[in-house]
Amino acid sequence: VKASWEKRDLSLRHPFTIARGSRTTSPSVILRLEHDGTTGIGEAAPSSRYDETVETVDQFLASLPWQRFHDAFLLEEICSTVVSHAPGNNAAKAAVDLALHDWLGNRLGQPLWRILGLNPAKAPVTSFTIGIDTPEAVRKKVAEAEEFPVLKVKVGIPDDEMIIQAIRDCTDKPIRADANEGWTDKSLALDKICQFAEMGVELVEQPMPANRLDDMVWLRERVPVPLFADESVRSGADLKRLSGSFHGINIKLMKCGGIREALRMIHTARSLGLSVMLGCMIETSVGISGAAQLAPLADYCDLDGNILITNDPYTGVLSGRGKLVFSDRPGLGLLDRNG
Amino acid sequence: VKASWEKRDLSLRHPFTIARGSRTTSPSVILRLEHDGTTGIGEAAPSSRYDETVETVDQFLASLPWQRFHDAFLLEEICSTVVSHAPGNNAAKAAVDLALHDWLGNRLGQPLWRILGLNPAKAPVTSFTIGIDTPEAVRKKVAEAEEFPVLKVKVGIPDDEMIIQAIRDCTDKPIRADANEGWTDKSLALDKICQFAEMGVELVEQPMPANRLDDMVWLRERVPVPLFADESVRSGADLKRLSGSFHGINIKLMKCGGIREALRMIHTARSLGLSVMLGCMIETSVGISGAAQLAPLADYCDLDGNILITNDPYTGVLSGRGKLVFSDRPGLGLLDRNG
Repeated sequence: VKASWEKRDLSLRHPFTIARGSRTTSPSVILRLEHDGTTGIGEAAPSSRYDETVETVDQFLASLPWQRFHDAFLLEEICSTVVSHAPGNNAAKAAVDLALHDWLGNRLGQPLWRILGLNPAKAPVTSFTIGIDTPEAVRKKVAEAEEFPVLKVKVGIPDDEMIIQAIRDCTDKPIRADANEGWTDKSLALDKICQFAEMGVELVEQPMPANRLDDMVWLRERVPVPLFADESVRSGADLKRLSGSFHGINIKLMKCGGIREALRMIHTARSLGLSVMLGCMIETSVGISGAAQLAPLADYCDLDGNILITNDPYTGVLSGRGKLVFSDRPGLGLLDRNG
Repeated sequence: VKASWEKRDLSLRHPFTIARGSRTTSPSVILRLEHDGTTGIGEAAPSSRYDETVETVDQFLASLPWQRFHDAFLLEEICSTVVSHAPGNNAAKAAVDLALHDWLGNRLGQPLWRILGLNPAKAPVTSFTIGIDTPEAVRKKVAEAEEFPVLKVKVGIPDDEMIIQAIRDCTDKPIRADANEGWTDKSLALDKICQFAEMGVELVEQPMPANRLDDMVWLRERVPVPLFADESVRSGADLKRLSGSFHGINIKLMKCGGIREALRMIHTARSLGLSVMLGCMIETSVGISGAAQLAPLADYCDLDGNILITNDPYTGVLSGRGKLVFSDRPGLGLLDRNG
C-alpha cells in the first residue's frame, strides 16, 4: 500500500465562532492510498480540542509502517495496527480508515453504502450550522440558510437566548442547540435548556464540560428535550458510562478514528438505548461523504462541514436543501473538482 | 427476491446428550434466495430451547412479504422488516440474513470475510464438543477427537467431575466446560467450577439457569476462570445487564438472528469489555460457514456443528484439526455436495 498526503487550508464562507473560539480557515490533510492499481482517498481534519494539528497528522502518517500493509483488503488488521500505533491522533487515524473504505468500494465497483447493505433513502436530513454571532448577523445567516429545513445553532455564552430569539424572529424551523461545554453551572444549564425548549429547540448538545457526568445525570432527569454528548464521547469504550448521563451521542469520524469505529459505536449505542447523531468537523467532501455512508443508520445528521467552506477539492455526497444525495459512484463516491 | 426452502433431517454421528436431554437427529431448514441472476443460501437450525421447530420456521418464512423485497442489496432494510415481522423466530430470521450475506458476496464476487475486511488467519481454532456420556464412552470420543486441539465438554449433571476426569485420563488438552444451565445452586456451581479449574478447565459456560443473574454476580466475584453466558444472552440488548454477571458471551447466529446482529453484539461486547465466543447449534456447513466469516473478530470459537453430522448437504469453511480453513469462493464459500 503506497501512501501520499498533502495539507489543505479550508477557507470558511463566514468566520466560524463557537463557545471556545473563532476562526476563518480550518486545516485538513488529504490522504491518497494506492494498492494493486486501485486508489482510495481519505481525510484528516485535525482539531485542537483533541490535541491534533496538521503537523501531528503529518508526523503520525509518516510514522506508520506502510511497507507492512501488503493487502488493502485487510481493513480490520491495518486499522488495528494504526489504532495501536500511538494514542490519540484520531483524525489522522480516520484518514487511513476512510481511504481504505474508499479503496474497498473502488475495488469492488460499488458505493460503500451498498456494500454495507444500507438504503440511502433512509438517511435523515442534515442540519445546517449557524455559529455564534450578533442577532443581526444571525438573522442574515438564517436567510442565507433558507433551503435547509433544520438549523443547528451554536450557543454556550451569556445571553445566548438572544441568538435563539433572533432565529425564531425569522423562522419556525426545528432548531438544535449546541453549547460546546459552554455552561459550567448545572442550574444555569437547566434554565437555559428549559427556556430553549419553550422556544422550540428540539435537542441540546454538550451543555456542560465533557467530564461533568454527575451533573449530567442530574440534568438528564429534569430536562424536557433530549441531551446529546459530543465532547463527552470519543469512542465506543465511553458509551457504557454515558448511558445514564445523556439520551444520545454525536459520533464524528475525526473524534473516533473512522468509519469502522463509528459503526461499532452505532451498534453499541443501539444496544444501550442511546440515540445516534452523525456529526462532523469543518471537513471537505471526503470526510463528509465518508460519514454520510453511515447516515441511514443514524437518527440525526449534522453533516454540513463541506458546505461551510469555499474551496472543497472534491465533490461527493451532496446536501442541498439538507437532503443527503448519494451517487452510484464506487467507494465514497468522490470526484476531484480539478479532474 | 424469490425464496424457496426445504427441510433436512441432520443425522448425528453419535447420540448427543446435554444437561437438558438427548437426541440422534437434529432438524434444519435450507433457504435459497434468488435475485437478479444471483443465488444466496441460508439455514435455520431451530432449537426447542428457544421455542422453534421446523414447522415454526416454515410458517415464518411463508409469512414474509417476499414481494416487497425488490433489491437484495438492501440488507439492513430487509433484515429490519424480517426482525420486526414477529417476535422470536431467530433461527428462521438467521436463514434470511445468511442467504442475503451469501447473495451479497456472490454478487460482488468476493468471500464475505474479505468484504468485511477480515483476515482468516486471525480466526481462533474451534473446539470439538463432547456430549454427556459414561466415562468409558467419553474416553472413546476423546480418542476419536484426537486431531482437535481444544475440547468442549458438556457437563451440568451430578457426578460430572467424572467426565472431566475421564478426559484428563487421556489428554492434557485445554478443556472448556458447558453446564447448559445445569447447576441450580450457586455454592454447588462454585465448588464445581473451582474443582474443574484445578483439572485444567479454562472457561465455564452457562453454569446456572439463564435468568439467575444475581447468583452469577456472586459467582463471578469468586471464580478462578472466566464465565461465559450462552442461554442468558440472545441479542445485543441483553449485553448491558450481563456485563457484571459474566466475563464473556457465546454468540450464535441461530439465537441472535444472523450475521448482522452477531456483528452488532461483537461490537457491543468489545465496548463493554466482554470477551466473545462464536458458537453454534447442530447445523450444516451453511450456518457454520456463516458464523465462521466473523471468527477473526472472536476470542474463542466453538463451530463444530457440521462435524457432528453425517449428511451435510454442503461444504464450506472446513475445520479439520480445529483450524478454520476459508476458501476464496465468493459469499459464504458454499459448494453443494450433490453438485
